[in-house]
Amino acid sequence: MGDFNQAVVIEAIRRAGEALSRTELAAATGLSAQTLTNITRRLLDEGLIAEAGRAINGPGKPRVLLRLVAESRYSVGVHLDPAVVTVVVLDLAGAVVARRLIPVGSPEPGRIIDEMARAIDALIAEVGVDRSRIFGIGLAAPGPLDEANGTVVDPPMLRGWRRVPLRELLSAATGFAVALEKDTAAAAVGELWTRRGPVDDSFVFLYLGTGLGAALARDGDVTRGRTGNLGEIGHIVVDPEGPPCACGSRGCVAVTCTPQSIVAEAVRAGVLSAEGDDDEPGALEARFAHVCAQAEQGEAAASGILGRAARCTAALLVVLTDVLDVERIVLGGPFWGYVSEVYLAEISEHVQRLSATRALREIPIDGTVVGADVGAVGAACVVLDRALTPRSSTLMLSERSDVPVAP
Amino acid sequence: MGDFNQAVVIEAIRRAGEALSRTELAAATGLSAQTLTNITRRLLDEGLIAEAGRAINGPGKPRVLLRLVAESRYSVGVHLDPAVVTVVVLDLAGAVVARRLIPVGSPEPGRIIDEMARAIDALIAEVGVDRSRIFGIGLAAPGPLDEANGTVVDPPMLRGWRRVPLRELLSAATGFAVALEKDTAAAAVGELWTRRGPVDDSFVFLYLGTGLGAALARDGDVTRGRTGNLGEIGHIVVDPEGPPCACGSRGCVAVTCTPQSIVAEAVRAGVLSAEGDDDEPGALEARFAHVCAQAEQGEAAASGILGRAARCTAALLVVLTDVLDVERIVLGGPFWGYVSEVYLAEISEHVQRLSATRALREIPIDGTVVGADVGAVGAACVVLDRALTPRSSTLMLSERSDVPVAP
Repeated sequence: MGDFNQAVVIEAIRRAGEALSRTELAAATGLSAQTLTNITRRLLDEGLIAEAGRAINGPGKPRVLLRLVAESRYSVGVHLDPAVVTVVVLDLAGAVVARRLIPVGSPEPGRIIDEMARAIDALIAEVGVDRSRIFGIGLAAPGPLDEANGTVVDPPMLRGWRRVPLRELLSAATGFAVALEKDTAAAAVGELWTRRGPVDDSFVFLYLGTGLGAALARDGDVTRGRTGNLGEIGHIVVDPEGPPCACGSRGCVAVTCTPQSIVAEAVRAGVLSAEGDDDEPGALEARFAHVCAQAEQGEAAASGILGRAARCTAALLVVLTDVLDVERIVLGGPFWGYVSEVYLAEISEHVQRLSATRALREIPIDGTVVGADVGAVGAACVVLDRALTPRSSTLMLSERSDVPVAP
Repeated sequence: MGDFNQAVVIEAIRRAGEALSRTELAAATGLSAQTLTNITRRLLDEGLIAEAGRAINGPGKPRVLLRLVAESRYSVGVHLDPAVVTVVVLDLAGAVVARRLIPVGSPEPGRIIDEMARAIDALIAEVGVDRSRIFGIGLAAPGPLDEANGTVVDPPMLRGWRRVPLRELLSAATGFAVALEKDTAAAAVGELWTRRGPVDDSFVFLYLGTGLGAALARDGDVTRGRTGNLGEIGHIVVDPEGPPCACGSRGCVAVTCTPQSIVAEAVRAGVLSAEGDDDEPGALEARFAHVCAQAEQGEAAASGILGRAARCTAALLVVLTDVLDVERIVLGGPFWGYVSEVYLAEISEHVQRLSATRALREIPIDGTVVGADVGAVGAACVVLDRALTPRSSTLMLSERSDVPVAP
């Protein structure tokens, strides 16, 4: 891999979602017939594409159609969430072919990395694929991350994970290269890879997990920021009348619209009993789900709590779209399914009314196409993405010395 | 112009800030000797570079040095501010060679555009340069802008400027192509162009003008966003205890740390008399300067007001760096000079203490190198930048069909 034009060809076939002839590939990529013949021969030899019949289209020779061979390569995605570790295996087309969940329980790093490695081995055996055909492992973890050292810095709700060298430990335990990525950025890569939107797709991804985080896609690519920690939003004030926050301010995202803060408010309002341990990530999801179910059944206090959280989320999205100026908003993550209906109904009116560009346009708001596993699926897509997607930066590096200048 | 490798060569000489030999250019650009010979011959013919003596460096033939010819091309920058229009002419090296200020007074669009055009003609005559050697006009205006139509949408404090087709009107009045840019983005281009930082320079630029706005540079390039309006920050809440805002929230940037809100607070505190018309942009700067002078003389109420504004600005910068994850912060704009000392002393401690990446790094905070004219200088740099800076997007478009694939 690693050749720019080769990546362009694979990307064109993948994005088309169907078999293409060399003529169609030439039109889609701008590459010459001779170049395409060379590249497709190499990809056929390597088994990444295959012939898929012939198309007869007017006079002239029938054209050979080329398709992606989904089962030719795989990648592994792991999502470290405070409550549950999700492991998936994706094929070259981005489809999930195997999946396993590991409840975290007591978050001892060594034990959890062992369990990740065992689950990865088991899933690879289940798929029955040779290890040489696996591109590597993508590992999504809560931010902030220390990208340079491959460590999680001090994730809230993962006690004992301060500066754990996660990337190296998982690589040593499995023998695969590991790409460490913030869970939010991984989710945005998953959305880009799965939706096959316009090549210049531009969105902010709001990730609703045990915490809230944002990611940014611009020109069809996820922007990581200088330290890989773009999209830290926990202490943006979204309700000046909201409760005080440990940061010294009040009404931050962290204390108004995270699952934890919603559960805490439900306890205060008597919607939930006070007996649950809401600092225990495994218990949090069930209690959050209970609040959402109450709201769905028309329970007024629960509805009021979710409505307020939705309005705080809308205020956050106004800040993010005003600052980032993206085409659209995508929401997703493990907790998204519980609130999607209420949120989609509440958020849009607020965003359109308060956006700085309201005189110019409406901002589309969608739920992710990937589902609750978006962190793990996205992490696997990060690996596919690095292996397969053409990058102008790669081009720049390889280009300078050997490209003739047009006269 | 417009050739990628040609732009690479000009950029390399410009960034070096001194004459380079072809050997040094080869090292800086990665281009082959033959390619460099072709390109430098063309640039010498066009007069953009010239020979600047010979360097003797060890045995072998002395090397011809090549320098940028600053006086070979020019660009014009215009900054439409609610109080004053600034017009500058820049040479190819980015130096200001002529400058004029036009007080706005009554902001009638037709009259102001006429005055801009007259000032541009007068400055070009003053410099004594043929119009064919002027790349064009960069026009910086307050956002939000409608980029597609080249209009300012509804700038606060510029009455009568709703949807004025500024780009077309100035182009018609002058006969030059006009690039319309948000004032904040123009300022960031000016900073990039003038500082000659690392090629992957990454910063958020906080622009302190009649209003506050932000811009983003990433990988040495200013990011405009989907509609050209990236960095709208007026309604980010920076003080939950702050005054109510017309947007329905309270403690927004717009009511806590803009020059207008600082002057309004000074009136409430008795630091300023209530007699001034603070909605009149021309009067605002003098009254703002008075508050700053009082603070500098140790007047407690004035110091308290500026200190609070600095802390609100710091809270804003924490939001921006948390969301954008940039390398550093740059502050500038026409009002920056009045507060730079107080702000630089106050802001850093807050930002470092509250930043989401505080465990990883300290975020450098600087004043702009450009000065109060950064809007107009930046607008002229936008034109130089479009004409001269290599862009991988240009490369991508020109590359696909004619580049051979390495075997």
